[in-house]
Amino acid sequence: MPELYFEDFTEGLTLAFGDYPVTRDEVVRFAEEFDPQPFHLDEDAARETLLGGLAASGWHVGAIGMRMIFDGFLHRSASLGAPGIHEMRWLKPVRPGDRLRIECVVTAVRGSRSRPDRGIVTFSFTMFNQDRVVVMQQANSIMMGRRPVGQAA
Amino acid sequence: MPELYFEDFTEGLTLAFGDYPVTRDEVVRFAEEFDPQPFHLDEDAARETLLGGLAASGWHVGAIGMRMIFDGFLHRSASLGAPGIHEMRWLKPVRPGDRLRIECVVTAVRGSRSRPDRGIVTFSFTMFNQDRVVVMQQANSIMMGRRPVGQAA
Repeated sequence: MPELYFEDFTEGLTLAFGDYPVTRDEVVRFAEEFDPQPFHLDEDAARETLLGGLAASGWHVGAIGMRMIFDGFLHRSASLGAPGIHEMRWLKPVRPGDRLRIECVVTAVRGSRSRPDRGIVTFSFTMFNQDRVVVMQQANSIMMGRRPVGQAA
Repeated sequence: MPELYFEDFTEGLTLAFGDYPVTRDEVVRFAEEFDPQPFHLDEDAARETLLGGLAASGWHVGAIGMRMIFDGFLHRSASLGAPGIHEMRWLKPVRPGDRLRIECVVTAVRGSRSRPDRGIVTFSFTMFNQDRVVVMQQANSIMMGRRPVGQAA
């Protein structure tokens, strides 16, 4: 049974999770499968690029954020899935050895008019490294089931 | 040496790539690592959800799109990386057994004022399955180097 329903996500609610350790093996493995640009694969090739050294694929950073959110609260929520993401900005490189934290702020809530058993919760997600540098920012809406009638909060 | 530079990406240019076969093993493996929601892991659990059956994580779909774009043209372009994505919508489930195609349309080009050796190319990416159903739509900007002076197009 979920613990967190639509009603629990009020505007301004802030949750924070981490830390998530980034390994070189994971960075290279993800890049080999999905994003084999030189700056995600090889230290030497990366040094000459805008990233200035080996850095995780932005898609990997997004997927890590998903995992942190899942472990942080989504696994015990009435999430029904998400229709997409509004925006994702990769602000600084994520490097092997980094330890990531994520802060989640509820920026909007809206009940569904057509489906009274659910609503949409919009989040702003900010990911930091161990030096409190913001590496990624994202806005994302998740469908959440409402608390069933008669179930205590 | 890259073949495609900023100058080659003109507004309206359309490129299409695929197909990419989606396997059940890959769907489950990605979900276990990054997005272990029941509807990405297990047929039975997925049947009762909005997705109506096992479907790939939206983050996996985004990563597959990245791979298709890399294989399609990015590997032979002067790409310098991307600052983020503007929007990604997951419109229909991506299922094991699907064969995906992606269409890439250049929607805007803008030379950098501060860095005359590069520009920003904005793309609209549309991913289809084998039934020509749109499963994902995305808008994304990529930094591209300009063709070096004296190099033939």
